[in-house]
Amino acid sequence: MIFMETILCGVDLGGTKLSAGLFNLQGQLIDKSTVFDHVNKNEDMIVEQIVLLVKFLLKKHGYFEDELKGIGIGFPGHIRYPEGIAITTSNLPGFKNYGFREHVQEHFMAPVIVDNDVNAQAFGENKFGGGVGHENMIFLTLSTGIGAGIILNKKLYRGKTGTAGECGHSIVDINSDVQCTCGNYGCWMALAGGISLPNLFKKKVEEGFKSTLELDIGFNYSQVDGKFIKKGIDLDDPVSTSIVNSCADINGIGIYNLFQIFNPSMVMLGGGLMNWGPIFHNRIKEKFYALVKDMLRDPIEIVQSTLGADAGLYGAAALALE
Amino acid sequence: MIFMETILCGVDLGGTKLSAGLFNLQGQLIDKSTVFDHVNKNEDMIVEQIVLLVKFLLKKHGYFEDELKGIGIGFPGHIRYPEGIAITTSNLPGFKNYGFREHVQEHFMAPVIVDNDVNAQAFGENKFGGGVGHENMIFLTLSTGIGAGIILNKKLYRGKTGTAGECGHSIVDINSDVQCTCGNYGCWMALAGGISLPNLFKKKVEEGFKSTLELDIGFNYSQVDGKFIKKGIDLDDPVSTSIVNSCADINGIGIYNLFQIFNPSMVMLGGGLMNWGPIFHNRIKEKFYALVKDMLRDPIEIVQSTLGADAGLYGAAALALE
Repeated sequence: MIFMETILCGVDLGGTKLSAGLFNLQGQLIDKSTVFDHVNKNEDMIVEQIVLLVKFLLKKHGYFEDELKGIGIGFPGHIRYPEGIAITTSNLPGFKNYGFREHVQEHFMAPVIVDNDVNAQAFGENKFGGGVGHENMIFLTLSTGIGAGIILNKKLYRGKTGTAGECGHSIVDINSDVQCTCGNYGCWMALAGGISLPNLFKKKVEEGFKSTLELDIGFNYSQVDGKFIKKGIDLDDPVSTSIVNSCADINGIGIYNLFQIFNPSMVMLGGGLMNWGPIFHNRIKEKFYALVKDMLRDPIEIVQSTLGADAGLYGAAALALE
Repeated sequence: MIFMETILCGVDLGGTKLSAGLFNLQGQLIDKSTVFDHVNKNEDMIVEQIVLLVKFLLKKHGYFEDELKGIGIGFPGHIRYPEGIAITTSNLPGFKNYGFREHVQEHFMAPVIVDNDVNAQAFGENKFGGGVGHENMIFLTLSTGIGAGIILNKKLYRGKTGTAGECGHSIVDINSDVQCTCGNYGCWMALAGGISLPNLFKKKVEEGFKSTLELDIGFNYSQVDGKFIKKGIDLDDPVSTSIVNSCADINGIGIYNLFQIFNPSMVMLGGGLMNWGPIFHNRIKEKFYALVKDMLRDPIEIVQSTLGADAGLYGAAALALE
């Protein structure tokens, strides 16, 4: 009996949840299964969980392994590609130079592909989402950190090691005294990513902005994150609004820099900070167009990601089609 | 009688000279011919000169047009690719939205390819020069302006319009009061390209640095260019040395940014400012390695361009092999 490859599997490994999904070859989600108890497990135990999740889904829907075209896994950190070695991650314990792909592959005949989650989302959007048809697009995640998945000629561009797209560590303020998690000063993400928010809030208050938010007793600036600022803008807090504007301006500059370098037809924005809504998204675009002036010779779309909460899962499945 | 395609032609159109060269398919220069009287001619007359130069070289060496594999032309400005429309240039009069490729093509059966000179040099170095074997490399020209030719998967990456690689206009100092030719502030090239030198010299003098150069009566800061600074460092002028250091540091930062974005295996440096020599080149590398720290997981070569004075000609010929 000959089986046809008719099914894809995507695995989204995150810092809070671990999901696996079955997709048909057109990228439609058939079913998914999620667990939350992986976070304190070691790498080998997480591999075991992934294997069980995938096999469970296949069995549940009556698929045999021969029918599986591939398993794509999105990982929240650096991957040495194509080996699929997890170099490092700040979202899970362990995974330092761990042969992730190899350990999952041992359990399956179908090819296993491991890449970082932003690359997976970028490819998912280009294959199944709002980026379909774009030869060259940049998928940018504006989250705690900032990073890009780079699609050139409809393929993921990964560079020598597999770590291309770390534009959040590009330096946009050479005289900055704001230090990034990488140790350098003035990185894009240190000034406009989620990690910048405590420092920005403190600075604005010191500059004399009055927050109208009721701050808890024992309030500490380290509590300021994307959700905190979202609450602030919903309540018209001037400090929060001013921070959203600052971050939007710097993200507009960063996107402008990527435009000059890549001349893409689309920049797609995802990540938690996009929940700040239109005041953020619109101001990013305003800043971009103010800088680009007559240097824009073909239209560029600056849009929000489309695949929503399951973007990571779609992206991981898309990797299996690469 | 059937002719074999055995010969390439490269044309380097610059602001001071116009050269055409014949190359064999291995990229060896057979002969070249150069004119200097094109600068004040209009576009159609320059096309005529190019056609004459190419036909002259073919005839001189007994080649028939059937033997010509292609004609590559390097242009000192923006090109809409693949149409080969010259969008704009600051080195020659005219050439605003001029159908350059089309007008040359009318005179030949062999395909004519027009691209900007930095792309041509990048491809020439990857095909025939120091970049041979590198999948992903950035060729950076440090000259009056700063720009990159981007080689990914051994091919030129050009973006949607054809203007990718304009990294000199990426903003590295968001709070800068230094305006670039593009109108924006804090662009990499405005702070570290040849156009930055008059302003840097003035600033250093105002900061109290004493130049030991004998300045002509009627000296004007606008006279400060790369050659002027080269003379300065040869004579141990502290202002000139300090400027070379500033420019090197900012170029080191710019290259670091490109590393984070592209993760290439080589960055090759060309352009007039490289004549400043090892004190410039070495300090660029020092700054890069100080920033990259443990984020460099595979070696990267930061090297000087190898094709020398005829790089533009080699690069143009290489375009015909793309």
